[in-house]
Amino acid sequence: MHSITRWGQSPRFADVVIYRGEARWVEVAEDPSQDTAGQVRQVLAQIDDTLARLGSQPTDLLQILVYLADLKDAPAMNAEWDRWVRPGQAPIRACVQAGLSGNYRVEMIITAAASDVPG
Amino acid sequence: MHSITRWGQSPRFADVVIYRGEARWVEVAEDPSQDTAGQVRQVLAQIDDTLARLGSQPTDLLQILVYLADLKDAPAMNAEWDRWVRPGQAPIRACVQAGLSGNYRVEMIITAAASDVPG
Amino acid sequence: MHSITRWGQSPRFADVVIYRGEARWVEVAEDPSQDTAGQVRQVLAQIDDTLARLGSQPTDLLQILVYLADLKDAPAMNAEWDRWVRPGQAPIRACVQAGLSGNYRVEMIITAAASDVPG
Repeated sequence: MHSITRWGQSPRFADVVIYRGEARWVEVAEDPSQDTAGQVRQVLAQIDDTLARLGSQPTDLLQILVYLADLKDAPAMNAEWDRWVRPGQAPIRACVQAGLSGNYRVEMIITAAASDVPG
Repeated sequence: MHSITRWGQSPRFADVVIYRGEARWVEVAEDPSQDTAGQVRQVLAQIDDTLARLGSQPTDLLQILVYLADLKDAPAMNAEWDRWVRPGQAPIRACVQAGLSGNYRVEMIITAAASDVPG
Repeated sequence: MHSITRWGQSPRFADVVIYRGEARWVEVAEDPSQDTAGQVRQVLAQIDDTLARLGSQPTDLLQILVYLADLKDAPAMNAEWDRWVRPGQAPIRACVQAGLSGNYRVEMIITAAASDVPG
């Protein structure tokens, strides 16, 4: 089988898993004291950071599943998203409301094309 | 890296992303004024349409995640699903209740085997 | 295209789908009369069983999406998870609250590295 690369030191889960040309990871805002727009901006910037570490581009994003703590925040999320996304080179996206822990307003599960042995 | 093929013109997200032998897409009913059964029928027919455009078969479905706005609609969803699915050649499936926007009663996230350069 | 291997006889869905080096499956507790901790223990043991049938290892887990019927059960879930997971070799994980059918307290969607033609 192909090798699996893992990033992140948490005993509970890996931050990023890379396997057969795909990287998968989960993002919540590092500072959940911010409002939804601020948390979305953080999450999207964190995605860009991980893509850069992977040696991947924003155009390598394949799929993003968005969980919002409250769908009323969808317009605020979309405003940030639309500033960030590459039109015509976007991933597929689903966005639903689900219960999130603590003060998190948004959580995203990301899949992106990546080299198997980045860095 | 392998090439990524995207379908769909929305600036916010792609309709379909194809990469390394897998197509991913998200479906909601084109006419959300219909009831749950009608929306499920639409979504399943839209899945068949996308499979046909991909040059894939219903037996190429790998995974479908179903979000229902209300789990009380599960019997109505399953009645349509059971008429549609190929017994013995079905994808894996999870079905949970999550908040959906507008009048949507059902949303599905689909992964299917596909040629990398369809069409 | 690569071949698709399916396990499980349900007409509604497959228990496991294996394609291009990845196995995907969904787990709920076989005995949902147990409390959350008991259901989580069952689900994690069922994951181990499926990995063994696949000829895969716990370190082949790539991604687990956890749905809890009530996020108040997260500490109970994490206590079982932490006893089970291999620190430093964990999958990525997202955990959100969503509506689950019947008495189910937890549902997991699993992706793991696997041989294309196991067994």
